[in-house]
Parts: sequence; C-alpha cells; structure tokens
Amino acid sequence: MRFFHDTLAQRVRFASGEAAEQLAEEVKELGASRVMVIAAVPERALAHEVAAGLPVAVWHYEVAMHVPVEVAERARAVAVRAQVDLLVPVGGGSTTGLAKAVALTTGLPIVAVPTTYAGSEATSVWGLTEAARKTTGSDPRVLPRTVVYDASLMLSLPVEMSVASGLNALAHCVDSMWAPRADPINAALAGEGIRALKVGLPLVKADPLALQGREEALHGAYLSAVAFASAGSGLHHKICHVLGGMFDLPHAQTHAVVLPHVLAFNGRAALDAERRIARAFGADSAGAGLAALREALDAPRALKDYGMPGRGIAPAVEAVLAVVPASNPATVTEENLTALLRAAWEGDHE
Amino acid sequence: MRFFHDTLAQRVRFASGEAAEQLAEEVKELGASRVMVIAAVPERALAHEVAAGLPVAVWHYEVAMHVPVEVAERARAVAVRAQVDLLVPVGGGSTTGLAKAVALTTGLPIVAVPTTYAGSEATSVWGLTEAARKTTGSDPRVLPRTVVYDASLMLSLPVEMSVASGLNALAHCVDSMWAPRADPINAALAGEGIRALKVGLPLVKADPLALQGREEALHGAYLSAVAFASAGSGLHHKICHVLGGMFDLPHAQTHAVVLPHVLAFNGRAALDAERRIARAFGADSAGAGLAALREALDAPRALKDYGMPGRGIAPAVEAVLAVVPASNPATVTEENLTALLRAAWEGDHE
Repeated sequence: MRFFHDTLAQRVRFASGEAAEQLAEEVKELGASRVMVIAAVPERALAHEVAAGLPVAVWHYEVAMHVPVEVAERARAVAVRAQVDLLVPVGGGSTTGLAKAVALTTGLPIVAVPTTYAGSEATSVWGLTEAARKTTGSDPRVLPRTVVYDASLMLSLPVEMSVASGLNALAHCVDSMWAPRADPINAALAGEGIRALKVGLPLVKADPLALQGREEALHGAYLSAVAFASAGSGLHHKICHVLGGMFDLPHAQTHAVVLPHVLAFNGRAALDAERRIARAFGADSAGAGLAALREALDAPRALKDYGMPGRGIAPAVEAVLAVVPASNPATVTEENLTALLRAAWEGDHE
Repeated sequence: MRFFHDTLAQRVRFASGEAAEQLAEEVKELGASRVMVIAAVPERALAHEVAAGLPVAVWHYEVAMHVPVEVAERARAVAVRAQVDLLVPVGGGSTTGLAKAVALTTGLPIVAVPTTYAGSEATSVWGLTEAARKTTGSDPRVLPRTVVYDASLMLSLPVEMSVASGLNALAHCVDSMWAPRADPINAALAGEGIRALKVGLPLVKADPLALQGREEALHGAYLSAVAFASAGSGLHHKICHVLGGMFDLPHAQTHAVVLPHVLAFNGRAALDAERRIARAFGADSAGAGLAALREALDAPRALKDYGMPGRGIAPAVEAVLAVVPASNPATVTEENLTALLRAAWEGDHE
C-alpha cells in the first residue's frame, strides 16, 4: 500500500427543495455583498428563483459549451467592472466551467448550484477553448468553496439524458479503481458512488419525478467526480477519448458501451477492485452487477449503432496503445485491445 | 437524503519505510526553512532519524498526555523565540496534540508523522488541559496540512495496544453511521475504515512485524478519524464517555466491550447502516462480522472485568439518558438502556 492523496476542501449542502435558502445562508456566512450570478439563458428563470435572496451585483447570461476564451474574457471583464466578490453559477458543466474561468484569473470564490450530473463543481479542473482547441488545467482557486445540491432542480432533466449522464458518472467510478492515482480513499468514494448510482438510476428511469432516485443519482455523480478528479484517467477514459475524437461519437453513449468491456478486461487482473465493485453493486461479481444495471436501464450496446465504422477499430487500437496508463492492471496488447474494441463495436457482451 | 458536509483539505503521503524521504520532500515543497520538531523523549531517536534531512531550527521534547496548558505555553514560546515556520510532530496523539496547541495561537502549519493509530493528525480538533479540566475545540488552523504515514514506524507498537487502539478506531467507524452529522460521505469513509481494520488487525495479531497488517490498520485508523471528526459522537461514544468518567475505566477496552451491544441495539433500527457495516465486514450481518473479528482478536468481553461495579449501571443509565443524540436511530429508554449496559457489564453477547 503506497499512495499520495490530496483531499480538497469543499462544503456540500445537500437539501432537496432548499436551493434558495441554502444558497442565501451560505452567501451570508461567506459575507459576500456583490454576487455575480451566472446562468445560461434557458436557466434564467431558475437562476432568479434560486438567487432571489442574494445581494446580486450582476446577472450574467452568456454561457457557451466548452468555455470559449472570448466568452471567458467577457465574463471576467464584467466581474471586475461590477466589483464582484462572489461567483454563483446556476446550471450544468458549461456554466460552472465559466465561473471557474473567471475564478482562475480573479481569484474570486465560487458557490455552485448544479442542475445536471456533470460533476465539474466537485473538481479543481478548468477548461478553455480557443480556436477549436481545448486547454485544461488544474488550479485550487477554481474549486467551488461550496456546492448547493438540490435534487429537485434535476426533475426536468429528461430521463434519457439523466441515464446517459449517470452511466458516464458510473464509468468515472469504475475507472477510478485502476487509474494512475488510484488509492483506497478514491476507491471508497467511488464505491459509494457506484452504490448510489445503482440505486438511483433505475428509480429515475421508473419515475423521473420522484425525488429519491434523483437524490441518489446526484450524490453518486458528485462522488464520481471527486474520485475521478483525484484518481485521473484510466484505460476506460483513454479509450473513450480516442474513440470520441476519431469518430465524433456521442460522449455518454460511448462510455456506456465501452464500460462493461473494460471492466471485464481489467477485473480479471485487479481482483481487489473487482471485489470492491461487486460489493458496491451488491452483486456476486462486478460484471454481473453492471450487466443487471445496464439491463434495467436499457443501456446502449454497440459502437456501430452510433456511427463508428468497423474499419476504425485498427487505427483506434493503435491510438489507444500509445496512451495506455502505466498503472493499468491488465497488460494491454494489440491483440487483446483489438478483441475488446471489436466486442464493443459489435455489441458482444460476456 | 439531506446533509451538510465539510471536507477538510489535507494531503496524505502513505509510504512504508519512507518517512524521512517523504517528510523531506514535503518540507521542501512547503518551502519551510526553520522547522520545530516535536517528539516525546522515548521517540527522540526516531524523530532524529525521520527528521534527518530537514532544516531544523529547534528540537522540542517536552510532551505530556492531554496537553497541559503550561506545556503548551512553553512550546509556543519556544516556537516564537526560534522563529519557526513549520511544526513537525513525530509521535502519538499527545505529540500531535501539542503541535496543534502551538498552531492554534501561532497559525503555524503542521506536517505530522504519526507513530500510533490515534488519528488526531486527521482532525481539526484540539484539546488542552488546565487544572484537570480538559477543554476541546475545533479550528481549521490546527489541522495538519500533510500527514506522512509510514507503517514501519508502528512495528514496535505492542500487539495488545495495537489491537485495543484498532478496536477503538473501529468503534469510531461504526458510530459514524448514526452520529449527529452522519451522512453518506462519512459512511463511505467509515465503511472503508471497517474493511481495512477487519483485514489489518488479525494480521497484526498474527504477525506484529509484518507490514501488510500494519498498513491496513493504519489506513483504517486514518479513515476512522476523518469520519468520526466529521460525523460527531453517536450513542456509543456517549456511553463510553459516561462510563469512563464515572468509573475510571480503561478507554480502549471500554470501547471494545460496549461496541457490539450498541451495534445490535441500533442496527435493528438503522437497516441501511446495518447493511453497510455488514458489507464492509464482508459478512451476512453487521453483528456477525463484528463477532468474528472480536473472536479473532480475543477482544475484551465484560465491563465487570475492568472494575465497573454492578451498582454503577443505574447511575450510568441516568447519565447516558441525558446525552443521547437526537439523531440516534433506535429510541433509547431507561429500560432498554439498562438491558444494554447490563449485558455489556456481564459480558452477554447476542
């Protein structure tokens, strides 16, 4: 047992239906008096409801996917001009991401109110896009001081998107078990994430308006982000990153299809992780636990259904081989990786 | 699901046999140039080994149990006079506690090198004793920035003390499941603590010089402290605190005896916690898991063996009733608490 673990300071206020009260209390505790509320246009009304009790100096609605540099620059200028002392993003990953971009240069604290399972609020990772190139980095200043989780804000998130996003969170948890900075603390948090997502996602699917499923899924998504940000990208994320970039595949579906194959592949070589995942699923084996959940969710099964061409397997194998993490428990060869990708492409599950 | 959770920032360097290297690297990263090393006299040689590569401004060997105020005052004066910029306690709970007392008034950062399973290094709780009265409090300034865990430093800790201290850590984990600030994050960390202690303690007993058992126990003790400090004292700790104060019972043994009774008592009313503990033990039920571990460790069985008089049960019941946490899952009555304490006194296990 040898590991190095940085636990990041963060407060979580998890209270369904209480976003406005919890946010007001937090802002009061922080002593902020000039708040910049950041929300995308579709979340404008929601942001006004949630931030009703705050001393708002400026409302900012220019949010764009992947945080383009120009969008970040304008938001930074607004924050400086309005002499803001706190950033409050209300929204999904792009909204939180914009607040982070502002915090990166201004040092302003963030209190985040997420409305999706994106998880960005739980990490110190920032991203900016310039001329179609994404730059990412990690800085303690961009980690939100506090996150206000209100599962009732997710009730309108469509089931299909919730399930896809939840399976993406599940992939973060599983991959955390053998990623480059995997350690028993990350593994414990990831295990709890798996447990919560396994309980929550089928409930969301069965009744999208019931709160319990939304709460479990949200809690699981939070822990998946904490564990993943700490552990780093494992084999699963390397594969999905390569496939997404080469064939422009949909993000969440790619993760959903590839996960059982990587789990089967690595599980055999990482018995501790296998047992941990199985225990989190409450199943006899990790694979069986994931298979049952995928069946309950009617999860995506084959990469070919999402537009990946069969002749793409060979170049994908080549590209993945170049980025396999040294920490990976199973030895990756051209042969076994080809078999893995072919099975994911065809939709062959064990 | 409704909870508020403050995650505290801390770095852990867990590397057996590398205390000196890891400590030197950490001190370098922090840029400290005038270190105050704090160690009790018996750990003097060890401290010199571990701190060999540091820019030490002063070695301080006056450490006393429960951190008497005079001892703290003298250490603070030494730190100020020597213009220290970092505190490095090498030792058990009292040594870490003294560094915390210095940090409390000076704001100096701490890098802790624990040599026991006390867990103080993982919390922001400080304690001082004046005229036989202990004052405790919580302050973010006293939380060590970094902990260097080197399980090889524990190899000389006697088996009996290791087991007692390990069972005490286990009680922290179990009680975290229903303490006043219990939440699923604390529960996940406590579950991992139980898993690690369950694996580690029998190994320590079987072979005190083998590293694996020491590592698992140390890792489990760390998580137990994190979870307990965050969740607060549950029924188990309230009972042990009352018994300890009234009858001057040995701390660790009292915890070891009382734990299975509180687990049986609360487990019936807290099914989620029961299942979580069972899963962590890898057992069919939480009670069965704890019973098997206690048997393997030959754990203490009856309060009467440690000097508690039978007529003490009634006044203890009265005192505990006054401090039962509102969060306790099972309803505590004079009758059922009397039955619980009588069983713990007699050594009746279910």
